[in-house]
Amino acid sequence: MSHDGDKLKQRRRSDYPYFLTYRTRWSDNDQYGHMNNSVYYHLFDSIVNTYLITRCGLSPTHSQQIGLVVSSWCRFFAPVSFPTVVDLGLRVTSLGNSSVAYEVAVFEEGKDAASAVGGYTHVFVDSESRRSTPIGSGMREGFDKLGVKRTEFVNSKL
Amino acid sequence: MSHDGDKLKQRRRSDYPYFLTYRTRWSDNDQYGHMNNSVYYHLFDSIVNTYLITRCGLSPTHSQQIGLVVSSWCRFFAPVSFPTVVDLGLRVTSLGNSSVAYEVAVFEEGKDAASAVGGYTHVFVDSESRRSTPIGSGMREGFDKLGVKRTEFVNSKL
Amino acid sequence: MSHDGDKLKQRRRSDYPYFLTYRTRWSDNDQYGHMNNSVYYHLFDSIVNTYLITRCGLSPTHSQQIGLVVSSWCRFFAPVSFPTVVDLGLRVTSLGNSSVAYEVAVFEEGKDAASAVGGYTHVFVDSESRRSTPIGSGMREGFDKLGVKRTEFVNSKL
Amino acid sequence: MSHDGDKLKQRRRSDYPYFLTYRTRWSDNDQYGHMNNSVYYHLFDSIVNTYLITRCGLSPTHSQQIGLVVSSWCRFFAPVSFPTVVDLGLRVTSLGNSSVAYEVAVFEEGKDAASAVGGYTHVFVDSESRRSTPIGSGMREGFDKLGVKRTEFVNSKL
Repeated sequence: MSHDGDKLKQRRRSDYPYFLTYRTRWSDNDQYGHMNNSVYYHLFDSIVNTYLITRCGLSPTHSQQIGLVVSSWCRFFAPVSFPTVVDLGLRVTSLGNSSVAYEVAVFEEGKDAASAVGGYTHVFVDSESRRSTPIGSGMREGFDKLGVKRTEFVNSKL
Repeated sequence: MSHDGDKLKQRRRSDYPYFLTYRTRWSDNDQYGHMNNSVYYHLFDSIVNTYLITRCGLSPTHSQQIGLVVSSWCRFFAPVSFPTVVDLGLRVTSLGNSSVAYEVAVFEEGKDAASAVGGYTHVFVDSESRRSTPIGSGMREGFDKLGVKRTEFVNSKL
Repeated sequence: MSHDGDKLKQRRRSDYPYFLTYRTRWSDNDQYGHMNNSVYYHLFDSIVNTYLITRCGLSPTHSQQIGLVVSSWCRFFAPVSFPTVVDLGLRVTSLGNSSVAYEVAVFEEGKDAASAVGGYTHVFVDSESRRSTPIGSGMREGFDKLGVKRTEFVNSKL
Repeated sequence: MSHDGDKLKQRRRSDYPYFLTYRTRWSDNDQYGHMNNSVYYHLFDSIVNTYLITRCGLSPTHSQQIGLVVSSWCRFFAPVSFPTVVDLGLRVTSLGNSSVAYEVAVFEEGKDAASAVGGYTHVFVDSESRRSTPIGSGMREGFDKLGVKRTEFVNSKL
């Protein structure tokens, strides 16, 4: 999938159906005084898994099916610094038989333009064999609420 | 300073004058499914520095005086797990000429008993020479509001 | 830039001119018992900045020119788990006037196929104004040693 | 347990029977350009668990008995900065029926005085019920090799 920076830069809050607010941490800032690029991925993981756990019935320790990350990406448009509070917006951009692609945008409090947009692709696997399995119906219902716009992603090679 | 586990276990929300709420992150949980012990220290750093920046005028990149951690500690009473939200309470337990000891308690949402209590000691230094200097008046006023109970710490060896 | 998973999966140790060995950490593993996807980006940052500091004269606190990450990506092929030791290989895949794209591969000890391949793009900026500036000659010489294969990236849109 | 800073400052490499070398990471440095205090605890966890896994037969995902941290502490004597390489020394300072106290020292490459000394106490619990259980014989043998000096810790209140 090609992540077109110009398009991504146009992302606004209204593009995302699910939001969580995160307080940044002191150690998120690196020596240059901004939230380190790696930290965004920790936040992606956090909103995705919060959604899976609280809305789709995932239990990381007990579910027969878990999601493993096979690829991830991020575009950074404006720096964010501790102690700011950020709002994360989540949507699903592609939903396949056993995989799903999420997009997460990071918004500074009070701003409508995203500071960064990224995401990752989960392949759902059996928690023991770690082989891919079709996404269960409960999970799929949860994803359907995250506003996948199917036509937009027909050609995406995730 | 000896950190008496029995006393610390009695800490309640009313013991702390300043609070911040933090959302836990997916990667805070370690393999045992609980927030890793190291993560508590990231949270300590976060509430302390948020207070210093927003209430005491600290600018980590520009202030002439910064606080360096010389010792830290934590007692863990009950596990906390992502995606829970935690409330952190902060107080100052000892205030010297150039050093200050903070205590931070971690409360799960809706609980009045602390899941963990810990803290650390900052020595304030010149940001360039890194030599200790007396705590400035703006900073000291901020600490005074954090409820140091002086008698309790007369003999503490920080 | 499109990151073709099939090609990336073919990466071998011999594709990279610079290597560092990293010991994984307990907290790198997430609840699923594998190194969390976010941690790979911490490692990318580490090998890139080690190279910039030790081979290209970068001083993060004093240099007039610093590199800011504008985009990053990773493909995960096989899980890695603490306490394994990983070898990171670094190469430059594209070098522009003020930007450079790095690719980093993560190899488990003793294996020649990469467990993951990713990277990011640095735009070099003035450390104060944070405006992009042409990459200095010292830095550029360092990048030239990292084996950029220009033809391969003619059409890359970073 | 009272951690006497003056004594701890005297720790040398010869005080520790087990060593591992860790490469620091870019994000270990905080805004002040030094390894953040929280990161030391990540390193403590790493050497302790590496020892438990590689020398004492611990399998974090399968063992019936796992160690949970009930208290931790650290004293910081000299700053350490990325990209330095640090040597960690580990010893056991107290061994009870179901708990063990570790001490870890952080040495910069080539230095014999510790930059920091800290540690934590593990209580061993049943991996399912999470109730404390007597330390198994395999684990205990591993601890015996880590040089506990019993007399020194007779009065420690862990």
